Amino acid sequence: MLRESYREELDDINACLVGMANTVGSAMSTATTALLDADVALADLVIAGDARIDAVRESIEERCFTLLARQQPVATDLRTITTAMRIVGDLERMGDLAEHIAKVARMRFPEHAVPQEVRPVFLEAGHVAENLVAKAGTVIAKRDIAAAVELEADDDVMDRLHAQLFRELLSDDWPHGIESAIDVTLLGRYYERFADHAVSVARRVVYLVTGEHSMAPAAG
Amino acid sequence: MLRESYREELDDINACLVGMANTVGSAMSTATTALLDADVALADLVIAGDARIDAVRESIEERCFTLLARQQPVATDLRTITTAMRIVGDLERMGDLAEHIAKVARMRFPEHAVPQEVRPVFLEAGHVAENLVAKAGTVIAKRDIAAAVELEADDDVMDRLHAQLFRELLSDDWPHGIESAIDVTLLGRYYERFADHAVSVARRVVYLVTGEHSMAPAAG
Repeated sequence: MLRESYREELDDINACLVGMANTVGSAMSTATTALLDADVALADLVIAGDARIDAVRESIEERCFTLLARQQPVATDLRTITTAMRIVGDLERMGDLAEHIAKVARMRFPEHAVPQEVRPVFLEAGHVAENLVAKAGTVIAKRDIAAAVELEADDDVMDRLHAQLFRELLSDDWPHGIESAIDVTLLGRYYERFADHAVSVARRVVYLVTGEHSMAPAAG
Repeated sequence: MLRESYREELDDINACLVGMANTVGSAMSTATTALLDADVALADLVIAGDARIDAVRESIEERCFTLLARQQPVATDLRTITTAMRIVGDLERMGDLAEHIAKVARMRFPEHAVPQEVRPVFLEAGHVAENLVAKAGTVIAKRDIAAAVELEADDDVMDRLHAQLFRELLSDDWPHGIESAIDVTLLGRYYERFADHAVSVARRVVYLVTGEHSMAPAAG
């Protein structure tokens, strides 16, 4: 592989990662809509779409492996490729979490899995999730450290939403029973883990660019 | 690095992975005991011990990276190293899940987080988790495909235990309220995800050895 096409391949892999982040963002948005609207057709779209996300992951991993095998890169290029291999794992897991959300929506259809009291929380969690993955895409595309910092703040918002969910569940007037409490607990965890993985993506890029670990590890 | 010491380094990284699996297994066993016995001292041991698991992960990742950079391996050696880098991520996540279990125990101390009705389920989940991680260690150490197959069966047992938990929670006579239902839901998910990661470790080794993907992807 010529030097220019090696560089092009690295850039193309990066572009594929950004595309994968966009696909995962769409899956998450659609899953949130399916959840809030009890829309089983949208839920099924997300569930069916996860196989494509997994396929993109395999493709990117193989391309990274091929570069390692044929080009035997060192130094920054090597770290770029190993970073890409880790990021693709985070993005795939984010796709799985969107699928889990869609499956809850589907399981409870035609009922709404999310009771009225906590609709606003999940609506905002969906928005925060969209912001998180959009910023993760920007961080990957442009090595944008400022976006990585904003992403950490969005993760804090998601933590507060998650805490708010628990307060609602544990309040004296949760009238919806155990099954609903279980659903809301698991859904809350899926959004929280989605945020954790977005933070993980951003931190890997920051470490690649700066050599610094920005903050404490993403808990969760 | 001489050829012999390169081979020794690969073997030593593998041994470190096995050690890490053992450490994670101990953390999980201790976390389960802390949970069932409402033992806050044991819970604190697990919580404090997670930092060491994270440090081992970083060390193994850096050693893999160094081998990639200095030895520029190809073919099987390259796939061995990339496999090790993925396995270490799964093992670290398993350590995090043990820590989450310990934190639930700690949070509810001096009360028991696990009500009597589901103690047997969590006791068995703890045993299955121990078996899973012990077998994962064997698979890593010896490229033991038979152990990998057994591990898949253990994961099926964990799935059945997880389903049993939900049946208990959703039965007419769950008398312990919402907070307890939330705890049990999250604990069940931590054990399930622990099993998923052990399966993931085994499948990566099987793929390395045989070039085959053994079964459908570990759901969860």
